[in-house]
Amino acid sequence: MSHIAREKTRLLSRVRRIRGQVEGIERALNDEKDCAEILRQIAAARGAINGLMAKVVEDHIDMHVAHPSLGEAERAQGARELVEVIHSYMK
Amino acid sequence: MSHIAREKTRLLSRVRRIRGQVEGIERALNDEKDCAEILRQIAAARGAINGLMAKVVEDHIDMHVAHPSLGEAERAQGARELVEVIHSYMK
Amino acid sequence: MSHIAREKTRLLSRVRRIRGQVEGIERALNDEKDCAEILRQIAAARGAINGLMAKVVEDHIDMHVAHPSLGEAERAQGARELVEVIHSYMK
Amino acid sequence: MSHIAREKTRLLSRVRRIRGQVEGIERALNDEKDCAEILRQIAAARGAINGLMAKVVEDHIDMHVAHPSLGEAERAQGARELVEVIHSYMK
Repeated sequence: MSHIAREKTRLLSRVRRIRGQVEGIERALNDEKDCAEILRQIAAARGAINGLMAKVVEDHIDMHVAHPSLGEAERAQGARELVEVIHSYMK
Repeated sequence: MSHIAREKTRLLSRVRRIRGQVEGIERALNDEKDCAEILRQIAAARGAINGLMAKVVEDHIDMHVAHPSLGEAERAQGARELVEVIHSYMK
Repeated sequence: MSHIAREKTRLLSRVRRIRGQVEGIERALNDEKDCAEILRQIAAARGAINGLMAKVVEDHIDMHVAHPSLGEAERAQGARELVEVIHSYMK
Repeated sequence: MSHIAREKTRLLSRVRRIRGQVEGIERALNDEKDCAEILRQIAAARGAINGLMAKVVEDHIDMHVAHPSLGEAERAQGARELVEVIHSYMK
């Protein structure tokens, strides 16, 4: 079982909260709310998606890169996937 | 009319696309997709929300900080709101 | 006098502190310090440069975009420069 | 030999380049250069430090987390250090 399955419930509730935030931005735009208010909502959704990403990356490290039970090829693949994500994130 | 009203249609279609991306992450989690695949989807949604934020900030600068027709008090308030967003974003 | 001149002393001491942090990274590399330690030093220097950038951007907004005494053309130019910075930062 | 030692020459030349960029910002401030010009220099130094950080993190993954020759305790420690960096970076 992957870490995604193990953490599924908690990750799903985070993603649903983010969906709710994005729907809130949609409503605020439709209602032509104040621009500063919309910026605050966008910033909050962005923070939540950054937090989700950090969580999934950390779980990925634990389960697909560092876990003692991994075979050499699995670990190498997990590391390649991790480097790819970090590369696109940090630059 | 605020810049939000003027740009409403285009911004709404961007936000709906982001909602679709977040729903895609939800489905991928529910289907227990590969962790690397989920990370790629999260990274894409994050990129889209960053792009949306840049767009709304740029429109805010044009309409609420730099626009020649603004009164002094309006411009000062627009600048305060902008500094607040930048402060939370850049640190 | 530009805001750079006015804030010069304070900005210079921030930049010198950053230079000191970068020299610290150089020494740590030369001494083949622990990788985790070097990462912490790089992260600290990065945080300091982000803080410096936020400060200069905020001063730029105050003095070259929002200031009541600006002429229309100066303000428009200050806004263009600001949008350029934000564009490259937020995406 | 750690990956820091192995990569020392290349990393040192990157750090020296960053030091040169920071010294350039210092000179530009001293000369009271244009604010937009200073912002561009700060943004360039920030990009270079982000690139350095990505490089050291990637090397850390290869050598201290994913490398087949690591013992279980070393790998666990390398992963903890990595998670700490990512945690502070992504949030």
